[in-house]
This record gives sequence, C-alpha cells and structure tokens, in this order.
Amino acid sequence: MSSHHIVRDDQEPALIIANGAACNPELLGQLLEWSPLVIVLDSAIERVVDLGIKVDVLLGDFDHGFDPEIYKTSQYPIEIVHTPDQDKTDLEKAFDYLIARKIPAVNVVWATGKRADHTITNLTNIVRYRNLLKIVILDDHSKIFLLPTKFEKWYTAKTPISLIPIGVVNGINSTNLLYPLKNDTLTIGYRTGSSNAVLQDGLVSITHTDGDLLLMECMD
Amino acid sequence: MSSHHIVRDDQEPALIIANGAACNPELLGQLLEWSPLVIVLDSAIERVVDLGIKVDVLLGDFDHGFDPEIYKTSQYPIEIVHTPDQDKTDLEKAFDYLIARKIPAVNVVWATGKRADHTITNLTNIVRYRNLLKIVILDDHSKIFLLPTKFEKWYTAKTPISLIPIGVVNGINSTNLLYPLKNDTLTIGYRTGSSNAVLQDGLVSITHTDGDLLLMECMD
Repeated sequence: MSSHHIVRDDQEPALIIANGAACNPELLGQLLEWSPLVIVLDSAIERVVDLGIKVDVLLGDFDHGFDPEIYKTSQYPIEIVHTPDQDKTDLEKAFDYLIARKIPAVNVVWATGKRADHTITNLTNIVRYRNLLKIVILDDHSKIFLLPTKFEKWYTAKTPISLIPIGVVNGINSTNLLYPLKNDTLTIGYRTGSSNAVLQDGLVSITHTDGDLLLMECMD
Repeated sequence: MSSHHIVRDDQEPALIIANGAACNPELLGQLLEWSPLVIVLDSAIERVVDLGIKVDVLLGDFDHGFDPEIYKTSQYPIEIVHTPDQDKTDLEKAFDYLIARKIPAVNVVWATGKRADHTITNLTNIVRYRNLLKIVILDDHSKIFLLPTKFEKWYTAKTPISLIPIGVVNGINSTNLLYPLKNDTLTIGYRTGSSNAVLQDGLVSITHTDGDLLLMECMD
C-alpha cells in the first residue's frame, strides 16, 4: 500500500451503516463506490452481510445475545470494537471511534426510519460533534448536516431546503431562498424553517450567529 | 342520529392520516375500529382510497396539481378544506381544524418516515398544542405524546421508554425507570433520555418543572 493510498483513506469520508431502516441499495452502492472505511453498528451486520458488503469495523454493545465473533472469519480482516458504555448510543460511539482515528468526515446511512426515538436522537445528536467530525446523514429522501455559522453552496432552482433548529438558533440570514430569513430566530417545536426552497440556480448563503442549525435537503 | 351518538363522536379521538410513510394495515385497522372522524392530508388520499377507507375530511393546500373535487362523489359525504396558508404545515392546519370543532383528542398516523424534515417537524411541533389538543403520533415502531408536568401510567417491566426534550427541560424526576432521573435537565442534541425502560410492573411517574418533554414508547 502506497503512502498516497494511506493518506487518501483517512481523508475520504468513512461510512457508518447504523441500525435503522435500510436505504435503497442504489444509494448504498454510490457511497460504497469510494471504497470508504465501512463501520457497521451491532446486529445491523446481519442485514449488511446479506447484501454481500465487506465490513471493516463492527462496533456495538452486543447486548442482545448477539455474537460478533462469527464474523471474524467470514469478514476477515475485521476489527471488532466492543463498546459497553450505556451513556452513549452506538452511533455516538462510532463517531468517537472515527475521531480517535483522526478521520475527519463520515457519511451515515440506516440512521433513520423504524423507531422514532432512535431517528430523532441520531439526527439531533450530530450537533455535539461540531468541529470534531464532518457528519452527513443520508436516507432515500434526505441529506442532513450541521451548518457552520457561514454556509455557501451552489444549488439548482426549486431544490427543497429545510432549516431545522436544534434548540434555539439566532441571527439567521439567507440569500437566494424562496422564504428569506432576515436576522431571524428559529426555535424547535415553535418556529422552524422547514419546506423552504432555492429561488434560482446559484449560490445559497445561510449564516447564523449562535445555536445549532441543521440543513436538510429532502425529496419526496 | 341520537344526541348520545353526537356527544361520543366529539369526545373520541379523531384520526389524522398524514402524508408520510404508510403504517402497517393492522395498526390502521385498530384505530379505525373506533369509527373516528377520519381526516386525510392532501394527496395522501390517493393511497388512503386505495385501502378502501371512508374519509370524512380532506384537508390541504392542494398545490401540486392535485384535484380534490373528484373525491366529492366517490367519498360522498366528504368535507373538503382548502388551507393555502404557507406558514403552517398541513398537519398543523388539521390540528387547528379539530380545535375549531372542539374535538379534544387525535391520533395521527403516516406522520413519520420518508422525508426527515417532515418527520422531525411533525414530531416536534406537537408541543405547541399543549392544553389545546391531546395528540398521539403512532407508527409501526413508536407511540409518541407530549407529557404533562405530572405524568403517571401503569407499564409492564422492561417496556422501552424514551424521553426526548424539545429544547431544554428542567427539574425532571422519575420513579420506576431503569435509569432514574433526579432533578435532571435534558437538552435536545446534548443530553436526552433515549432508551430508558420500565423497571418493574407498575406505575411509572415522570414529572418536570418546565419545558416540553415528549414520551416515546418504541419497539424494534
């Protein structure tokens, strides 16, 4: 393995396959095309192995009578990481694992659907990894990430954009959105920026002064 | 129709069928058994009619080239409520409709799954209806409702209970939970009470002093 290869491995986003609803195999295939480091959470590995995917790391608390050892041969080489800490979710532990390995970015699939408590916890807990890990959660209808205080990206007209505050977010300004924000405050449960859209082909800018703001690109 | 019947109609929970992922037909069947007032949101009616369900109210902004008029004959009698207000979601407008009709309670299905922005908005926006409407959101894995400041309910041991703060919730105390809360503060994104469980058969009590706290009973 060349040193070039090693450097690339640790700069490309890793891929975490969590334990929620499976996504479209096409989305999974696109993410796997980049040959990322693949981390699977707990018993999701049973469904992942059925799809013929090679797993690099199996991580979890393995507390439901599930035996990870059987994958040591069938998925060789595989790293098995036992994380019994009950104060964190398996997804948070996988983020911690990546940070310890100094991997800067990760895509996450299968983190939504099924149990609503897991879905909302997975979506909202990414805010605590600001400045530690660049996280993107994807499912068949959604692409979700935490906004930096100054964000700019090129979009085509009419792209649906939802701004979801995790708590209270102040001093929000936008350009090139259908419903513009002007020094606005958004508050989860009371005033959110769901179902906005891009006005015309071009750069969208969204800035805020404080708080945690998720951007969701969602399609029916 | 007897006056008894009229009184019962308005005391039983109504049923809203929203526009997310369809639930198990068995869950829908259980909810329909009580012959509630059935409200369907926007183009979800296409999927609902395919299931042979009689709809009482069709409500939405009908802004995607969708013609509600065709259901006036096939679903007769049906009330069609056109709600063009872009500052509210169709689900919020359906809640407002029920409040105007003085209906005190509602079950909501198909409000989760598919687009993550719709899911998180639907789950979290119920907090603003405290004291106005008793709302329960259900899907195949989850039952979700807003807690009053003092809550007591009988559960069997090991029932999974997740406490999800919508914003910051202070002064939380619990009895008969596996991970007890003692004058605790929960903050969305930073410290949630996901994946708790009932300790033993019996009453669970959960109290809090301020903030909006959702209880989620979820199963894999």
